[in-house]
Amino acid sequence: MNLLILTEEDRLSDQHFAVTGKRRRHIINILRASEGDNLEVGLVDGPTGSGTIECFEKGKVVLNCTWQPQTPPAEPIVELICALPRPQTLKKVLQTAATMSVSDIHIINANRVEQCYFSSSAMTPEAIRENLLEGLSQGKATHLPKLTINPRFRCFFEDFLPRRISEQPGESLKLVADVDAEAYINSSLLADRPRVYLAIGPEGGWIPFELEIMQQQGFIPIKIGDWPLRVENAVVAALAQAKLVAHTIKKL
Amino acid sequence: MNLLILTEEDRLSDQHFAVTGKRRRHIINILRASEGDNLEVGLVDGPTGSGTIECFEKGKVVLNCTWQPQTPPAEPIVELICALPRPQTLKKVLQTAATMSVSDIHIINANRVEQCYFSSSAMTPEAIRENLLEGLSQGKATHLPKLTINPRFRCFFEDFLPRRISEQPGESLKLVADVDAEAYINSSLLADRPRVYLAIGPEGGWIPFELEIMQQQGFIPIKIGDWPLRVENAVVAALAQAKLVAHTIKKL
Repeated sequence: MNLLILTEEDRLSDQHFAVTGKRRRHIINILRASEGDNLEVGLVDGPTGSGTIECFEKGKVVLNCTWQPQTPPAEPIVELICALPRPQTLKKVLQTAATMSVSDIHIINANRVEQCYFSSSAMTPEAIRENLLEGLSQGKATHLPKLTINPRFRCFFEDFLPRRISEQPGESLKLVADVDAEAYINSSLLADRPRVYLAIGPEGGWIPFELEIMQQQGFIPIKIGDWPLRVENAVVAALAQAKLVAHTIKKL
Repeated sequence: MNLLILTEEDRLSDQHFAVTGKRRRHIINILRASEGDNLEVGLVDGPTGSGTIECFEKGKVVLNCTWQPQTPPAEPIVELICALPRPQTLKKVLQTAATMSVSDIHIINANRVEQCYFSSSAMTPEAIRENLLEGLSQGKATHLPKLTINPRFRCFFEDFLPRRISEQPGESLKLVADVDAEAYINSSLLADRPRVYLAIGPEGGWIPFELEIMQQQGFIPIKIGDWPLRVENAVVAALAQAKLVAHTIKKL
């Protein structure tokens, strides 16, 4: 736990928050913190700051928090589109996406997605939120990615996404990771695109028809490397490469 | 399993190989392959090719293999230096390093490494080899990374590594991932350096003294992103960024 994540439900007063359950146990058993100790805290979709432990009472840890001024989120804004993976992988993808400050996560269907994954226990709102919060804590981040679930592939790319993009300011860059692509992400692709849509396929890859639909909608196939990666690693690798290119552009 | 990995121990004759255990079960239960089917095969530290299933007999699957001419490994050659993580993380790191074609893995000690991890069951030669082979299969790769275990931090950086580097041709680039660094990896760092040493710290990060020793030995601190990543993700992110930069240089 690099950052203790607080939510509005934890709030007792303007400055006071009470944490319970897993976070309380972490403070007591792992951090072995005492009254008066300061912990780094972050409020979901809010600022980060410092929380002083005021007391331990009836299964709660009460913190008195002071906040730092919020800094605007780093550019570019990335929306992750991910074909629904198996439940254990989904958990990792959600955590990573939150850690790496993805703005939105769109879970989609695809030909090589096992349909039963849509009804797995990892897909409940509570499980999704828990994994996202875990990722925020790891990444010292507070922006909770918004999530959409899209059981219809064509609807998502031909209807939902074009409408969404038309409502956003600036031009978007649309990328689809494809091990057979030749080009990598580069600064001329990313320049002047404040928003990036990044699609990661299922374990067995996209089928040609899916790639065709995506390309018709302006998605550019990009290579992440010579190696077929597990889905959870493909997400990390693609986001890390996008970050590096965005940094290069900012420096120019 | 993207590639069926074969070893010299599986060899029956010049072209024939017999696989048992987990790989045999995968062929039967997951791939549901029959006699006459062709599987993509790779020989450890050798070529890739095609294996035709000749027969299923007494707990074995016998394949008749033909090999493709071997292509030289992709540049640059990366040697991964990794502070020993917890056993579950070590498994992922070994798999990923093999998938992403790391040449060598140096497991090192560091101040924030739990010493008991050195005697975990994940550190036995059999467990290490199993995870590396798993990574090769995922990445369709055949180069088995060589592994060294270094329980003494200073010995590794001040003695082992300088001697090793002095015996290698060309100039090496030495990088250490550090969330507080300002520079990212870039093409001017990587140009004309045929070999990259990349050091990834323990979950809690390096201590200042360790960074000092590494910098004295020519290691350059680099940032991977704004987010503190889990060790297994830091390895993926750093290797993916190095790959992207190497590709950019090749294109120039």
